[in-house]
Amino acid sequence: MTCDWFLEGTHFLADRHPPHAVGWKCLARAVSDLAAMGATPRCFLLSLALPQERTGAWLDEFLLGLRAASHKLECPAAGGDTTRRREVLIHVTAVGECRRGLAVLRSGAKPGDIILVSGRLGQAEYGWRVVRKGRGLAERREPRLQKHLYPEPRLAVGAWLAERALATAMMDLSDGLSSDLPKLCESSGVGARIEEKLLPVAGPVHSDAEKRGSLALALHGGDDYELLITVARKNAAKIPPRIAGVRLTPIGEITSERGIALVAGDGRPRELFSLGWDPFRRRRGALVRKQI
Amino acid sequence: MTCDWFLEGTHFLADRHPPHAVGWKCLARAVSDLAAMGATPRCFLLSLALPQERTGAWLDEFLLGLRAASHKLECPAAGGDTTRRREVLIHVTAVGECRRGLAVLRSGAKPGDIILVSGRLGQAEYGWRVVRKGRGLAERREPRLQKHLYPEPRLAVGAWLAERALATAMMDLSDGLSSDLPKLCESSGVGARIEEKLLPVAGPVHSDAEKRGSLALALHGGDDYELLITVARKNAAKIPPRIAGVRLTPIGEITSERGIALVAGDGRPRELFSLGWDPFRRRRGALVRKQI
Repeated sequence: MTCDWFLEGTHFLADRHPPHAVGWKCLARAVSDLAAMGATPRCFLLSLALPQERTGAWLDEFLLGLRAASHKLECPAAGGDTTRRREVLIHVTAVGECRRGLAVLRSGAKPGDIILVSGRLGQAEYGWRVVRKGRGLAERREPRLQKHLYPEPRLAVGAWLAERALATAMMDLSDGLSSDLPKLCESSGVGARIEEKLLPVAGPVHSDAEKRGSLALALHGGDDYELLITVARKNAAKIPPRIAGVRLTPIGEITSERGIALVAGDGRPRELFSLGWDPFRRRRGALVRKQI
Repeated sequence: MTCDWFLEGTHFLADRHPPHAVGWKCLARAVSDLAAMGATPRCFLLSLALPQERTGAWLDEFLLGLRAASHKLECPAAGGDTTRRREVLIHVTAVGECRRGLAVLRSGAKPGDIILVSGRLGQAEYGWRVVRKGRGLAERREPRLQKHLYPEPRLAVGAWLAERALATAMMDLSDGLSSDLPKLCESSGVGARIEEKLLPVAGPVHSDAEKRGSLALALHGGDDYELLITVARKNAAKIPPRIAGVRLTPIGEITSERGIALVAGDGRPRELFSLGWDPFRRRRGALVRKQI
């Protein structure tokens, strides 16, 4: 079981994010936590608090998006709670199932394990910036916004790895690599070293400035819902380059020394600070922008 | 599985309700829905959104109250989500278990069934009014406020009835009898007739005005978390006057004719309107007050 807040003003902007995408994403991000354990979704509970003026067309579109996600992810609604509120508050509890003993936790990474990520990193954060800068409702079919508006939980990847007991630890990247990798390492009692040049960045990398921008997005941008995976080195060859069409990229290895080291282009490691999403730290945006 | 919002300003007042009681009640009211199915609590998920200034003493007290409920109800924490917000938002998902085929639904009531309620009705609404009229934080040990601040889900009553398959339908009274009885009847495709003089009212009934006040609280007051139960007439004699120390009171019967009839003191039935808690109806308070 897993649950997630999805709150107007914090996680989405009611005047920028199309309600259809809000409906999709509130379920997709909860199901992403199931994917990260190698589980198969079974059902979800939706709790919704709404202003009166959003109980009409807004709610209809929201429910269409939610239904699309529910069908796609094969995760039916099983209950919930509703109330009235001056802002839109959404809470989703998702329930998944996996075979006894095969759930992948965050706590199993061992020194020497290789670290992989699925897909590309940073696209969702980029989309979020585009939406925030825009005026009025974003166009929900805009290609640059797809990863941000309609994330796809990596269920097939997680299940493939879990069934074969190949992942020693796994979690989804919701707060950004620089925030999530330390959590996995903390749970496992280990450290990590990742290499800048291996990161599957998403943005353009023609100029040095673009490279720095794409790198910062890949390191610190949240909301990608890609998987962060560790695999014992002896099993590395069993991991195919793609699972269900999703690329898997080795980005470094688990170390016995604590802390997260980022090996820069010049080959020198430096400490990687968490600049991803942390609701109780104020300066996130400023720090990320400074990096870029 | 069941889930409930518990929101500052809507369900509690952060400057009136002691955080300890907020912690207790957010779990107790979710578990009450398990009691109403005859289930045994297994675990809960807590999602919390807090302003920075409530992450200190307020949060400590809240967690003490929550822990007290968790111990008392034998329902351990199993996860959750936290974020920052300018108001306190609480969401609890509770998970219970009952033997296959023994869960009691709202939909099984049949014409002729007798209707019972546990405990007394209206005390919680009375406490809510006292708190709302008060200044500053309410005293959490104040006897008049116990039912409002520290409701006790009727787990033993629900489980006793479910194990013996004696309840044809059951639900908890969270929104008030006049709102919840129609929901049970709607689910079961039946109507109901209840008798004013049988209602286990809570308040003083010395004067006619007091009687009317207590009756209105019992009919329309929310938050009691007592159980509303229907039992086949042939099994009526099997229901003891008390289960686990909690009184069970027959208040009427299920009818094939739709609608809810309230038989007044003069023996004449009149239609009972829903004046309990409905977040999308504005005039609730005014209507209840007018009744009184």
